[in-house]
Amino acid sequence: MQKKIIDLTHTINGKMTVYPNTLKPSFEPSNTIERDGFAELKLTMATHTGTHIDAPCHLIKGEKALSDFPLDKFIGKAIVIDCERKDEISLELLKSRENDINEVEFVLFRSGWSRKWEEKDYFGKYPVLTAEAAQWLSEFKLKAVGFDYVSVDAMDASKLPNHRILLSKDILIIENLTCLNKLPETEFDFYAIPLKIENADGSPVRAFAELIR
Amino acid sequence: MQKKIIDLTHTINGKMTVYPNTLKPSFEPSNTIERDGFAELKLTMATHTGTHIDAPCHLIKGEKALSDFPLDKFIGKAIVIDCERKDEISLELLKSRENDINEVEFVLFRSGWSRKWEEKDYFGKYPVLTAEAAQWLSEFKLKAVGFDYVSVDAMDASKLPNHRILLSKDILIIENLTCLNKLPETEFDFYAIPLKIENADGSPVRAFAELIR
Repeated sequence: MQKKIIDLTHTINGKMTVYPNTLKPSFEPSNTIERDGFAELKLTMATHTGTHIDAPCHLIKGEKALSDFPLDKFIGKAIVIDCERKDEISLELLKSRENDINEVEFVLFRSGWSRKWEEKDYFGKYPVLTAEAAQWLSEFKLKAVGFDYVSVDAMDASKLPNHRILLSKDILIIENLTCLNKLPETEFDFYAIPLKIENADGSPVRAFAELIR
Repeated sequence: MQKKIIDLTHTINGKMTVYPNTLKPSFEPSNTIERDGFAELKLTMATHTGTHIDAPCHLIKGEKALSDFPLDKFIGKAIVIDCERKDEISLELLKSRENDINEVEFVLFRSGWSRKWEEKDYFGKYPVLTAEAAQWLSEFKLKAVGFDYVSVDAMDASKLPNHRILLSKDILIIENLTCLNKLPETEFDFYAIPLKIENADGSPVRAFAELIR
């Protein structure tokens, strides 16, 4: 049984795209081969740097941190739903995939927006779940939903309503995915693996699909 | 097909064990719900914090960084070899498992040392690969080797010879694993998933086994 791994993660570096008014990651030598005999970098980044996952306490005080979930929460069956060239992700679009959504633990939305990574336009008008679509989706037994753009809410949605609808049901949110065009049309094994940070409101993840070939 | 996930990773927090003379991780609010409407933590840690993986350039200038390997490098079949209550990991011990080692991509060594995590004695005399055992092991087609203690070399081995023997063959080194006592005696699927940091000499990982039940 041969596995094919598809990496769905943006590279973390000093010039990467970050959400407006949040921390840019940086890297500096902490130990060096010359001085210490081995090299280590000091990493400075945020819990929401790059491809990452949001825990409920990212928005809602007193709700769960990432470390309140077992690792199993970040692994399961997934499908991808195409929303390229759409103005929004409508209830109608979701209902057309209801049977598939019922069978999986993760739904990923492919807008093609990851092609704009490191461009200013990345923070433009990507297709967002409508309020009724977010509400309908939140009734499923999903572990998380994922997007190839920066936020489950529109850039001008200051109260972040879709975040609240999903996180209040412990449906986690994966943002800044990439390479979703490499995924099959049918169900696949999906992983969004965070660091094991105590009480974190989120974590950078290594997201990938594992296909049997 | 039901999967069982066994997490083999220490929790990252401010009081965790770190290698002598290296950076302690720290966490502080970077964005807050009160001020920004959402919470993010600023993470400061090293590329070798907690359960982590070493790339060749951790010790050898000009050799490969972690980002030079595809994600596939961190996933594969593994066995665990028991070295509890042994003074060293001898060639004889390894040879007794030669057939098994030939079948896998990862060999994990279980000394029981992870029980001393957060104790001073963690940096004591754990059982280390002898030079001939490390050399013999480096001839296999392994992706990485892993340990439930802090280093593939003894604490007083200033030149880190076992690191050099393995890393020069692109066999990566996973250190500070935990819970290896929960693993089966036979082969299993193993993951040591790093962050996707450009040109890093290592990365904290989320290490886990996936068992079919």
